[in-house]
Amino acid sequence: MRKDKIDVVLAIDIGGTFTKIGLVDRNGTILSSHVFKTEAKKPFTDFKILLEKEIRKLLSTKGIRHTILGIGIGAPNANYKTGAMENPPNFRWGKEVPLKDTVLQIIDKSIYITNDANASALGELYFGMAKGMKNFVVLTLGTGLGSGIINEKKLVVGEYGMAGELGHVNVYPNGRECNCGLKGCLETYASVTGIKRTVFRLLSDSKEDSILRNYSFDDLTGKEISEAALKGDNIALEAFQRTAKILGSKMADTVAHLEPEAFILTGGLSKAGELFSQPLIQSMEASLFNAYKGKIKVFISKTVSNDAILGPAALAWQELAMEN
Amino acid sequence: MRKDKIDVVLAIDIGGTFTKIGLVDRNGTILSSHVFKTEAKKPFTDFKILLEKEIRKLLSTKGIRHTILGIGIGAPNANYKTGAMENPPNFRWGKEVPLKDTVLQIIDKSIYITNDANASALGELYFGMAKGMKNFVVLTLGTGLGSGIINEKKLVVGEYGMAGELGHVNVYPNGRECNCGLKGCLETYASVTGIKRTVFRLLSDSKEDSILRNYSFDDLTGKEISEAALKGDNIALEAFQRTAKILGSKMADTVAHLEPEAFILTGGLSKAGELFSQPLIQSMEASLFNAYKGKIKVFISKTVSNDAILGPAALAWQELAMEN
Repeated sequence: MRKDKIDVVLAIDIGGTFTKIGLVDRNGTILSSHVFKTEAKKPFTDFKILLEKEIRKLLSTKGIRHTILGIGIGAPNANYKTGAMENPPNFRWGKEVPLKDTVLQIIDKSIYITNDANASALGELYFGMAKGMKNFVVLTLGTGLGSGIINEKKLVVGEYGMAGELGHVNVYPNGRECNCGLKGCLETYASVTGIKRTVFRLLSDSKEDSILRNYSFDDLTGKEISEAALKGDNIALEAFQRTAKILGSKMADTVAHLEPEAFILTGGLSKAGELFSQPLIQSMEASLFNAYKGKIKVFISKTVSNDAILGPAALAWQELAMEN
Repeated sequence: MRKDKIDVVLAIDIGGTFTKIGLVDRNGTILSSHVFKTEAKKPFTDFKILLEKEIRKLLSTKGIRHTILGIGIGAPNANYKTGAMENPPNFRWGKEVPLKDTVLQIIDKSIYITNDANASALGELYFGMAKGMKNFVVLTLGTGLGSGIINEKKLVVGEYGMAGELGHVNVYPNGRECNCGLKGCLETYASVTGIKRTVFRLLSDSKEDSILRNYSFDDLTGKEISEAALKGDNIALEAFQRTAKILGSKMADTVAHLEPEAFILTGGLSKAGELFSQPLIQSMEASLFNAYKGKIKVFISKTVSNDAILGPAALAWQELAMEN
């Protein structure tokens, strides 16, 4: 029998700014992919039309003969069980966005969905640096702090499909205001936005000279803070120290729950290198219960973060394998 | 074929004061059981001789014809993967107690081992109030705070067999000294010992009259604190409030990891009833991320805590089922 068609999944990664779609085979090879603007501030119906058009375009790409076995979607606040995006921040798509049903109307295949950080964890498990690992936690340190938990090679989804929101464990009972309405959530400290807030707190508390005094809150990005720190700017260095200390101690709490083999860090904040990872590991170790000391690895992600669609692709492949 | 032998497991629950052994069938019926003093302060070799004698006695019980399919053991700090008790507090048995190997020398069957709180979680899953649940967390609020995490009907054991030590998540970075060497661990606040420490802090800070001013630290037990609270003693009431507030907020962090359907509380502190559970639930709800609010149940254990050997029995039955 001539086998001239390749089995693939359609992977969709929806971000606040860009959406990426692609066809991915069982080994994580991206046969074809395409990026377009999400337009998260326009109505969801606009996105639906856009997505349908882009999917049609992708599927009509010449030269690849494929069979789509299923669809994997990663999106902010997406619920694994309901298939909806629930109150996604920075999107004007409503409180319950029926993402799964919408895609099903465009293309009628098995659809699997989860939030971006969970998808990222599966991407690391199947195609990234967690290949061969059984228990690990991915932390995405970007605008917010997302997390995906893998236990015994499976994504921990929880009772209602929303497990793994480590951005909202509490650091200080009356701490910084969080987008979610609570106070003192971890992501208000340990994320790109978090370290920026810490920089502004330090600029306010101390009299120390700093390059960072030239930036407005809205203009300052993680890049400037990293660059300042590398140049020896004391405010920037102290901001990294404080951020690492808080995140490290909370990672120790996560270990007390799950005893993972490793943490894998992705996102802007993780790119600062040893400046961040060294005090982070130090703080985690100092807070670890005896039984865990010296056992938990901390890695900076390499592969998957470069290709966001490998996450949703891995989700689809995992779910398809479990069904068969 | 005449089926006159009943399939059972030998269940062993080792506590700091008493050890209980018994034969338990697939439905959680205890066919025969026996309790003896652990003598944790004497050498482990003494315990070994004692255990062997007691097991022989149990197995020679007249009237029950049984086939032992396996052995389940619950013991403080027991490691699911290594089969050893690691640095058990209050035991003078050494740093690595080779419990599994020792029992294997007495009776050569498949042996499964885990710590007491994990065993308790499995007991609730198979024979207790968590029958039919898939995701829940058991908290044992006794001298310390133990925990057992069930995810998708399976015990979360972690990479090295020691997951689920929620007694050692951090409450205050420079908080109370813990037996484990860290400071500010949850069990120094949320346990019978923890609430006692809080009572003494309140007696020191306030000028309020209290029945509890008549007790020395070593004499005061959870019972007196509960009774004082029920009589309206303000120090005792405030101690329950503070304890509940701390535990509730940390339970919210656990939800952010695992999104369980429920928490099941056991042990001395849980027996205080609404006095404790009402402010506990209030505090947890106030700290929960939106997606979880109003969804997480809190129960006080009924069944299993009465019979500690149902935990290790459940462990043995689960492991035997997975192997076949």
